[in-house]
Formats: sequence, structure tokens, C-alpha cells
Amino acid sequence: MRLRKKPWADKEFEINDKLIENPNEFKGKWNELFGNDNPIHIEIGCGKGRFISTMSIKNPNINYIAVEKQRLVIVFALRKSRQMQTNNNLRFICADVSELLQFFEPNEAQRLYINFCDPWPRKKWAKRRLTHSNFLSIYEKLFLNGGEINFKTDDRGLFEFSLNEFEARDGWRMKNICLDLHKSNFEDNVMTEYEEKFSSNGMPIYRLEAYYKK
Amino acid sequence: MRLRKKPWADKEFEINDKLIENPNEFKGKWNELFGNDNPIHIEIGCGKGRFISTMSIKNPNINYIAVEKQRLVIVFALRKSRQMQTNNNLRFICADVSELLQFFEPNEAQRLYINFCDPWPRKKWAKRRLTHSNFLSIYEKLFLNGGEINFKTDDRGLFEFSLNEFEARDGWRMKNICLDLHKSNFEDNVMTEYEEKFSSNGMPIYRLEAYYKK
Repeated sequence: MRLRKKPWADKEFEINDKLIENPNEFKGKWNELFGNDNPIHIEIGCGKGRFISTMSIKNPNINYIAVEKQRLVIVFALRKSRQMQTNNNLRFICADVSELLQFFEPNEAQRLYINFCDPWPRKKWAKRRLTHSNFLSIYEKLFLNGGEINFKTDDRGLFEFSLNEFEARDGWRMKNICLDLHKSNFEDNVMTEYEEKFSSNGMPIYRLEAYYKK
Repeated sequence: MRLRKKPWADKEFEINDKLIENPNEFKGKWNELFGNDNPIHIEIGCGKGRFISTMSIKNPNINYIAVEKQRLVIVFALRKSRQMQTNNNLRFICADVSELLQFFEPNEAQRLYINFCDPWPRKKWAKRRLTHSNFLSIYEKLFLNGGEINFKTDDRGLFEFSLNEFEARDGWRMKNICLDLHKSNFEDNVMTEYEEKFSSNGMPIYRLEAYYKK
């Protein structure tokens, strides 16, 4: 998403208390921040943030942390969370996914959401895809004693790539693989902004859950 | 495929020596029949048989056995194999896949091809799909010390089902999962009659390889 800075952005950063500017200080202490022992679920690349705000309202007994690397984008998510009156179970981090292990101790989070990430279609860009084995090895460290990824995309090539990447590594097992999410009987799907726009054209959405257990 | 009996069918059965009428007598002895120790690959549901005849010509060092339950259909495959002047590395069996273990000892075959089998789309028919876990358990007995399935379909629902069935069972690992075979860079694809007709409409063909190792 390429964006100009919005005139209201600075004000949003100022008044919003959900952005954690120093996430490495909370490594191993996120449950202290949330004030409970509930599971922690992370969204990588939250975009404009409707998904994570909706999830946090729907599931008050889960703590959510949304990661988004672009400040010009995360500010939309911050505003959305404020407008939706989300509760204390949601925080935001502006950082790149490659930094995940700087912010979280192994076993600190139990689930990752990856929704409609950049497909990086050219072969030479494969290493940038968030389901490339190099990224899976990061998630494996995060999920030391087990965890899961919920992955959605509209990009057939990326989905095919992801199926093969998960299959090629030890310890992962996929479930609920879905080649046309909105025609399946999967319930409880929370749509992202992008998903709503895209799927209204009748194009299929692909989804899988991948479980890691050493 | 629903067919009337062709006037040339009886003649074909008479002159063709590739149909094995008593396959259970060859259980454990297929390599004797072929007169060599080459690997044995089986196609389940060979239809009109172009695929298996092409494969047998392309790969003279593999022995092929095509299984098709309908006599009115297998006769086309017999004629095709004669017209294509296939060699001694090909045989046909008219039987149902559920009988496989009556014809083959464990480890006697190393690969199964399943091409464009009936998708049985209604949920109550799921057990009839050739990638249902009940069938996978038959293939597992066949592949006692390891083996592989090459699976192709044009049916998205069946492919989705199959991905999940393989994932749900121990011992299977998929490779080369492909969501649009004819746009991929997979080489050496031998098309079936159905595949050629279907894919000329631009619809995607799905393919996977599933490896079994106990």
C-alpha cells in the first residue's frame, strides 16, 4: 500500500495509547502488560487493521498484537481500533517481521495471522514471501513448544508456494486447507478490508491453518 | 463415462493379449510376468487409456498396469494400446480399486497414478472419492516400505479434499503441489484425453505428488 501521510496522522500517534514504541522492552513480559495469562495471537502485516480490531472485540480472552512495518499504514489501524472502541487486549507494533524474535520469547505467542501479504510474484523475490522457509524457521523459534499459523491469500501462486513450503519442513501439519473460502462452510471468518473488496469480484480466497509441533 | 457397447468390442477382447483376466493369480509374480525386475506403476481408472500407453512407450524401463472397472471403457484402452503399438511393459486389469490388495503383494508396486477420478461432489459420497482416508489406508498397505501417488484433477473441491486427507494421515508428505499445472513449469506432463479437452478451456488442472513412508 503506497500512501501519503495523512494530516491527522501525528494527532493519532499522540492520542493513541495502543502503539508500543519500544516492543523489545516487553520481550517475555507481554502478559504483564496485558495484566493476565491469556494466549497471545499476533497478526503480521495488519494493514488498515479492521481484522485485528474485530478479532480483539470478538475474543476478549485473547490478547492481540498487530505488527505492521509502515508507519503511514499502522496509523490507519490505530485510528480504526480507537473508532471501534477496542479494549485492553490489543496492541500495535511498527516493525518488520524479521524482528519478531527481538520482541517475543519462545512460547510467548501461540498463533500468527498472515492475511493477504505481498505475493512477491517473481521467482527472484521468493525469499521475501512471508511463508518462505526462512520465515518459517523464525516462526518455529517463536513456537518452540508448538503453535499455529492462520494464513489467507487471494494469490494462487503464493498459496501454492506456501503449501509446498510447509510440506517441505519437518514439524508442520496443515488443516482446513481451503481453495475457495467464501464458498466453503468455514464459519467465523473475519474479513480484512482487502478481502472484502477482492472477494466481491467472485475471486476465490485461499486459506490454511498450519500447526507446528517440534 | 456412460457408453454403449461398441460393435468392435468383442473382437478387441479376443485379439488383445494385454488384458489380464485372472489378476489374482499374478499376486506377487508380476515381475515374472514382465520378465524383469523393473518398478511397477499402476494407474487407477485408466479410462480410454492414452495416458498409460504414452507412459509405457516413454518409459520402457517401468512396468505399467492400468486398472479400470468398466469393461465398456477398458476396451477403448486396449484398442488404444494396440494402435499405439505399446510394448511388453503394459498390462490391463478390469477391476475395482477396492480389490487392489487381492492382486498385489505389499511392496510389489512403487507408484500409483490417479487421474481425473470422479469427484463425487456430494458430502454423503465422500467415501467414494479415491483419496478418501479409507482408500489411503489401502494404498498404505500396498506401499508397505514406501511408495508414491501422482494425482491430477480439474475439480477444485476434490483437490481441496485430497490435500486435507493426505495431511490428516501419518506417513504421507506431499511435493510439487500445483494449482494450475499448465501454467506451471512442470515438464513431462502426459495429458489424458479428458485433460486435453478440459484444459483447452483455460480451466486450471490441479496436481500433487504424495509420498508414503511409514
